[in-house]
Amino acid sequence: MKIEEIEELKNRLVELSYLNNTLGLLFWDQEVNLPVKAVDARASSIAYLSGLAHNKFIEIDADGLLTKLHKQLLAGNIKNNEAVIVAETWRSFEREKKLPEKFVKENAEVTSKAQSVWAEARKTNNFDLFLPWLTKIVKLKMQEAEYVGYTDSPYDALLDVYEPGMNAKEASKILNNLRDSLIPFLKKFESKKSKVDIQSIKGKFPIVEQIAFNKLVVESMGFDFEAGRIDSSTHPATYGTHPYDIRLTTRYREDDIYYSLGSTIHETGHGLYEQGLPVEHWGTPLAESVSLGIHESQSRMWENIIGKSMSFWKFLYPKLQKEFPIPFEKLAIDDFYKIINHVKPSLIRTEADEVTYNLHIIVRFEIERDMIEGKIDLADLPKIWKAKMKQYLGIDVPNDSLGVLQDIHWSCGLIGYFPTYSFGNIYAAQFYAAMEREMPDINKQIELGEFQKTNKWLKKNIHSLGKTFRADELVKKVTGESMNSKYFCEYLDKKYIYTT
Amino acid sequence: MKIEEIEELKNRLVELSYLNNTLGLLFWDQEVNLPVKAVDARASSIAYLSGLAHNKFIEIDADGLLTKLHKQLLAGNIKNNEAVIVAETWRSFEREKKLPEKFVKENAEVTSKAQSVWAEARKTNNFDLFLPWLTKIVKLKMQEAEYVGYTDSPYDALLDVYEPGMNAKEASKILNNLRDSLIPFLKKFESKKSKVDIQSIKGKFPIVEQIAFNKLVVESMGFDFEAGRIDSSTHPATYGTHPYDIRLTTRYREDDIYYSLGSTIHETGHGLYEQGLPVEHWGTPLAESVSLGIHESQSRMWENIIGKSMSFWKFLYPKLQKEFPIPFEKLAIDDFYKIINHVKPSLIRTEADEVTYNLHIIVRFEIERDMIEGKIDLADLPKIWKAKMKQYLGIDVPNDSLGVLQDIHWSCGLIGYFPTYSFGNIYAAQFYAAMEREMPDINKQIELGEFQKTNKWLKKNIHSLGKTFRADELVKKVTGESMNSKYFCEYLDKKYIYTT
Repeated sequence: MKIEEIEELKNRLVELSYLNNTLGLLFWDQEVNLPVKAVDARASSIAYLSGLAHNKFIEIDADGLLTKLHKQLLAGNIKNNEAVIVAETWRSFEREKKLPEKFVKENAEVTSKAQSVWAEARKTNNFDLFLPWLTKIVKLKMQEAEYVGYTDSPYDALLDVYEPGMNAKEASKILNNLRDSLIPFLKKFESKKSKVDIQSIKGKFPIVEQIAFNKLVVESMGFDFEAGRIDSSTHPATYGTHPYDIRLTTRYREDDIYYSLGSTIHETGHGLYEQGLPVEHWGTPLAESVSLGIHESQSRMWENIIGKSMSFWKFLYPKLQKEFPIPFEKLAIDDFYKIINHVKPSLIRTEADEVTYNLHIIVRFEIERDMIEGKIDLADLPKIWKAKMKQYLGIDVPNDSLGVLQDIHWSCGLIGYFPTYSFGNIYAAQFYAAMEREMPDINKQIELGEFQKTNKWLKKNIHSLGKTFRADELVKKVTGESMNSKYFCEYLDKKYIYTT
Repeated sequence: MKIEEIEELKNRLVELSYLNNTLGLLFWDQEVNLPVKAVDARASSIAYLSGLAHNKFIEIDADGLLTKLHKQLLAGNIKNNEAVIVAETWRSFEREKKLPEKFVKENAEVTSKAQSVWAEARKTNNFDLFLPWLTKIVKLKMQEAEYVGYTDSPYDALLDVYEPGMNAKEASKILNNLRDSLIPFLKKFESKKSKVDIQSIKGKFPIVEQIAFNKLVVESMGFDFEAGRIDSSTHPATYGTHPYDIRLTTRYREDDIYYSLGSTIHETGHGLYEQGLPVEHWGTPLAESVSLGIHESQSRMWENIIGKSMSFWKFLYPKLQKEFPIPFEKLAIDDFYKIINHVKPSLIRTEADEVTYNLHIIVRFEIERDMIEGKIDLADLPKIWKAKMKQYLGIDVPNDSLGVLQDIHWSCGLIGYFPTYSFGNIYAAQFYAAMEREMPDINKQIELGEFQKTNKWLKKNIHSLGKTFRADELVKKVTGESMNSKYFCEYLDKKYIYTT
């Protein structure tokens, strides 16, 4: 193997990344800035650039360079970082080359348009409006699975995009375990539920002041504003186009500052991962995140394990009280803590507490798996949704806007994505437990608002490694165990015994 | 000629526009949003996409489609709109195919980096820092002229990009005439100069309130916020990526609301042109502006002829007084009018009044023309600059930051661009005179803030035509005469006789 060949591959990957990070910017801009009349024009631009990026990726091997390097890899002639680059590029390439350009473009165009139909359907509580578009999308996704290939379930082929190496069977096992722990936990919890006055943290928080407070929090957490920014959008998200250009978005409600803060802390967790990727390897798999599950572990660790801990609020609450004396000056930190950690089955996933959240995910996972396996008549979705919400969370869904239409994901073609949210919770608890074993004073540091050591640990063990290890290898390497929900359940047990 | 061939050409042009409008977004984002550390990464992305757009444009004729259509055009077999599409595409294509991809990329990369060097040089008043980069750029531009070809002067080849059909000789003739009218006008003017207290329009104008007031003004002028937006950037500009997505930028100073308003009205003039292009032809020359000079005629007409008229302020001043009672409540409209129309030779082009502004342009035009013709040792630029400013404007330039380093243009590779600003002033006065002949009550309408008829006239006669006519044809068609500075000088004479 010649050095120049690896260098040539890297150059091609970096060029490809110019296209892909530009696509990232188009998506960000669509959510943050786009004038309403330009929606269709943007959809067309995104579709065109997606097709172009797909073609450029396939062209990487036009002269057989990647195939040649892959053979060298199999022969054991490529090692270390370079082995990661070749292996992971090959992995994506194999999938991508199976998808015809026409399919990629159609997928981009349909999902881009479906998003506005979905928005209208949710607004008007009209599942029938969305049904033909969802039907198209599910058909496209089934087609994608056929193009890509799979062993057991077509769902494997979709899941594998977001959580490489995972499959429907393994995911079902992990999530069934979690479900079977959570349902009794929730029942036990409900029987002795505490009384909290949620209204006592509501008030009038001018958006400009919330924006300023968010910036302070994000900066305290270690996010570098010279390499990123935070804006407002309907759906909070993190757009990582380059470790030096990470864009967080959050949302605001004037009467509820925690509505924004929770999302902001969550997205900052994602943002720290993206800023922690090794910039010198940008464009290659060495500067890409491991999987969505691992990504989500960073956001959920910050949002919940750290961001809803008493230690964190011992640091932040005095600042919150100072900035917003009404209502916080007269509200004890213990009461604030109880409110933000209040557990109660509810309709909306994005506003769910950390216990019931995973049951929301499991509902979606089971439905989308069955959808892709062709076991569901899509017209029955509202009915199926309501039944599962009743069975797992014990609540009645009054309408589809608050039910099956609440999430944007399916309209974007994101099927196989939901379970990674729960993987994130599970990984987060495992990582945090490992970090605590290595740094027993971590809670003390958090209390002081000193996050340097936490960030250093996360960067060293996770962020800076890019795709060097697969999710399952990484978790074993860092925590000594495979992914399992034990630590997450222990975390919940320990935390909620005191608050109830 | 087959219909399908024209349709195929249109499809290829539309696809190309997806790339070009994405590039436009990258530029806009660079000025409005980009985190500081991401400057280099963005420069590389822009360079890569520029190269790609260049290649895609050349590929339009890979199968000889454009060449074939061009032959049909010459044979008289293509008419009307389709003739415009073929002729104008051929024109750009002929130029573009002469430029090697390597050159296009190098040009994009050098100019992108030179901008930050220029910014530093201006900040530290260090011309020597910028000199090697300017040398590179001038060399690239000379190279470009050689690639493209020219008859008399290499400057022709550069000017032609921005003002198709124009050349150095014709531009020199027009601008010499203008210079020879303006210098005595200014002398006469200075001898009887009025006293105004510029400070009386200064005050404390919170940026958020300025932003709100700007929006009101921009909307009153007829700009559609469902098809565009306005943001803040160091250099005010208009980024037109699609008639439904037009992005204006402006700048703010807390003590000077007119600093922002003037720029905002100017950019809105550009924005109305872009929003008025025929969306159904987007991607083709039928939905492109005629030239930079014609574009500038729209912004300067709004900024100066309309936006600095007594009629306009009879409409807007009461609103300004209401929003900012301090200082405007106690300032008579006549005094306000005199201040915003105050004529005084000054150092900075972008802050110059409408009389001296053109002398600033003529200084730059003469220098850049001589630069490209190889008649200047670039190290002498500061000296030459100072001499011309003294000769034409009668002022001493204290340092290079306020002199030769003040403008970003050369660092962007924009050589041949400056004269179009003066063409804009000349065209604007010609168009406005024609509009006044057709609608004698136009000033009355402006006084009432009713801009519908003005916008309708501009849209019908200019905006909606795209590139159907060349600048010289359009001006003759609309005003009955070729470009000449007579109307501009008459406008100045008429306006300033009353204020002095």
